[in-house]
Amino acid sequence: MPTISIDELEIIKVNGSESEVTFDELAAEEPLEIRLEYGDKDNRRVKNISVTMRTPGNDVELATGFLFTEGIVNNVEDIVLAEPLQISCDEDKENTILISLREGVEPKLGNADRNFYTTSSCGVCGKSSINAIRTVNNYAAVEGQGQIKADVLYTLPVILRKHQDLFDHTGGLHASALFSTDGEFLLVREDVGRHNALDKLIGAALQKVWLPLQSQVLLLSGRASFELIQKAAMAGIRIIASVGAPSTLAVETARSFGITLAGFLRGRRFNIYTSSHRILRAPEL
Amino acid sequence: MPTISIDELEIIKVNGSESEVTFDELAAEEPLEIRLEYGDKDNRRVKNISVTMRTPGNDVELATGFLFTEGIVNNVEDIVLAEPLQISCDEDKENTILISLREGVEPKLGNADRNFYTTSSCGVCGKSSINAIRTVNNYAAVEGQGQIKADVLYTLPVILRKHQDLFDHTGGLHASALFSTDGEFLLVREDVGRHNALDKLIGAALQKVWLPLQSQVLLLSGRASFELIQKAAMAGIRIIASVGAPSTLAVETARSFGITLAGFLRGRRFNIYTSSHRILRAPEL
Repeated sequence: MPTISIDELEIIKVNGSESEVTFDELAAEEPLEIRLEYGDKDNRRVKNISVTMRTPGNDVELATGFLFTEGIVNNVEDIVLAEPLQISCDEDKENTILISLREGVEPKLGNADRNFYTTSSCGVCGKSSINAIRTVNNYAAVEGQGQIKADVLYTLPVILRKHQDLFDHTGGLHASALFSTDGEFLLVREDVGRHNALDKLIGAALQKVWLPLQSQVLLLSGRASFELIQKAAMAGIRIIASVGAPSTLAVETARSFGITLAGFLRGRRFNIYTSSHRILRAPEL
Repeated sequence: MPTISIDELEIIKVNGSESEVTFDELAAEEPLEIRLEYGDKDNRRVKNISVTMRTPGNDVELATGFLFTEGIVNNVEDIVLAEPLQISCDEDKENTILISLREGVEPKLGNADRNFYTTSSCGVCGKSSINAIRTVNNYAAVEGQGQIKADVLYTLPVILRKHQDLFDHTGGLHASALFSTDGEFLLVREDVGRHNALDKLIGAALQKVWLPLQSQVLLLSGRASFELIQKAAMAGIRIIASVGAPSTLAVETARSFGITLAGFLRGRRFNIYTSSHRILRAPEL
């Protein structure tokens, strides 16, 4: 089960001409440092890979998912240890995860820089960004078997909200969730950062040895950006539905990887942007 | 006026059992590379500082605002040139901004790493993150003169939506806006990334020589995270209102810098998290 940190703070609640001092629950946000230990037996190195602002909880999943979706570690079996590092600190918080790789396995640290891809002949552009992630993607060629009925798709945000209600008292968390193509709820993860919620979800799926996720459906509680589609592609996801709007580059990335992307999924309405054949609709009237 | 890129794409719109092929407007998302030229006359260097996924438009403001809010450049007068770089590319898009610094001015490149701040004795934590930004903040000690009436605060999201309607046909853009404490609309910027919208806004304010913004009000269309409060603090902003929820670290950062932070500003309701003295309310009943 996900464990999400919520803090209670004293606030002033104003409603028209009335106001009262009360307590409110807020989504916790804290930095998480991901440290990677790797190298040969005689030459182990430790490197700080990233610091991300995240909602504490499921930190090992977040670190594992991040390393995988960024293409730094391609096989979860290469990770021999993933645990919080005890560092004495006056705040007494566990904000460092140490990931240790199997001896001899080299992390692909350059892959994390793929968004910075640029050549002298061509500057950065959407196409170069998509090409850069294509070279590191494990599952670009995997064709998903799954299809989902529109009638099932409609139910997913409703089911997500039920599960989100369990932890999101704060109104401040993004969610990423996995469903079967029959609409069965499988997994949800939440975070103040939408990319973190997805990394946690993929990290959890990695631990369950579910990858590639080509017959599951990814539901995003908010908007669909390039970064989220890219991370989903790294996990082999073939059907993505978002409650919010996609960006142009999200659509181009989904198209480039043959991913089905639906957006604005609200009530019994949604838009299909790419690969519509995986969403089964009633014959048009 | 802001110039925001919108692309039109062919989509399938599904509504219950009906569906139709139609066109829809999406917020454009493209990478922007920020290159910095600096050094002595005889030893000019060019360095790639950052690539961010942004909505094209107001790119010079975005680059300038980013360098300022990240503490890399502290005086806008040090920037002698800021313009798109013409790079031949098959997509023919302007996705690189070259910023050239006055001779002899050294950029504080280490400041951009402040979120990565960590020491051997203490790991990363919210407190260390706040301390790290404190050391690079220009306006931490500036006390804002401004106060705003609750009755004025209520009107800001309504005014923002009117201005947003001009360009946000997509449902996919975040907005940051500046108002006077009398509720007068001053400036809005939009982007698929909320941090970009704020960097564009602060970059535009820099060009207008408005900083420090200690008697203006910043309105955020979504949630308030650590990063947004930090960037606002770098511009001397003392009153922030968000339509969405703040995170715990956003509240701690606002408190640490003496910034007034209100959230969940909807209708005639809002919450005050810090420095409530700058929001004038009717006497309690």
